[in-house]
Amino acid sequence: MMILTVPSAPAAAEPEPPVDLGALPGLIGYALRRAQLAVAQDFHRRVAAEDIRPGQHSVLTVLQNNPGLRAARVAQALGIKRTNFVPVLDGLEARGLAERRRVPGDRRASALFLTEAGKAVLARLAPLVAEHEARFAGRLGPDGRSQLMGLLHRLGEAGFDPA
Amino acid sequence: MMILTVPSAPAAAEPEPPVDLGALPGLIGYALRRAQLAVAQDFHRRVAAEDIRPGQHSVLTVLQNNPGLRAARVAQALGIKRTNFVPVLDGLEARGLAERRRVPGDRRASALFLTEAGKAVLARLAPLVAEHEARFAGRLGPDGRSQLMGLLHRLGEAGFDPA
Repeated sequence: MMILTVPSAPAAAEPEPPVDLGALPGLIGYALRRAQLAVAQDFHRRVAAEDIRPGQHSVLTVLQNNPGLRAARVAQALGIKRTNFVPVLDGLEARGLAERRRVPGDRRASALFLTEAGKAVLARLAPLVAEHEARFAGRLGPDGRSQLMGLLHRLGEAGFDPA
Repeated sequence: MMILTVPSAPAAAEPEPPVDLGALPGLIGYALRRAQLAVAQDFHRRVAAEDIRPGQHSVLTVLQNNPGLRAARVAQALGIKRTNFVPVLDGLEARGLAERRRVPGDRRASALFLTEAGKAVLARLAPLVAEHEARFAGRLGPDGRSQLMGLLHRLGEAGFDPA
């Protein structure tokens, strides 16, 4: 005769059945989003002390490399919608990392510049971003990284195809 | 003697110098984000008539495959933060595509279900999502697609590493 024993683990700790994701894991868009979230989370952890998100890092980098560029062109170059770009820029300006200056003869446009504080943040971020990048590059290996960058580039091009 | 001619194109149409993106295009995170945006934009264009974003499609798919799953587990399975999941779910419920039901004996939890309207939307989306997927798969080729999915999976695993 079998004796039923009470499991030693409490009932609340019992593993729940896995969630069925259906066709999602086979979709390119879903796989991209999951990988992108994982990479963004690591970025966030590493630069938590500087409180800079990947999108803010991109904007600061563009301002450093293109002083005086107009807001519309920064947004366009980074593929950010204008409506999403305004709050990012407002946040950087409120923290004294970037500044808008008037463009003579064009009341609607503003030229963007990195402040000294913005340059200092970017300099402090550089080794953290390099470590972050090296971590994921290490997981892929040199060939894998090169393959991935080529494949991602092809996806990006497809997105800009008006067809 | 050279005679300067007025260019035929108006000054406003002159090409502006390209924006210098610095090291961004070489960063895995940046390349992922650009590719993900391009794929999400195509998804958006194709399913515009149904007004469903990729994240909403993922939630509807999980509810279809796991009727009665609790909200916290849906969010966890999709890697969505709980605070970001609540408005997604509110939106789907307001449109009558999903519904929360009470869980007996647990006042804080709710079990999620797809409504008949939600099932119908998912059925109408299926061929559109398949076309969307085929477009990008075609750009990559069978080998490229398989390589990409493997590489993205490795990035996702790296993100869940607590190191």
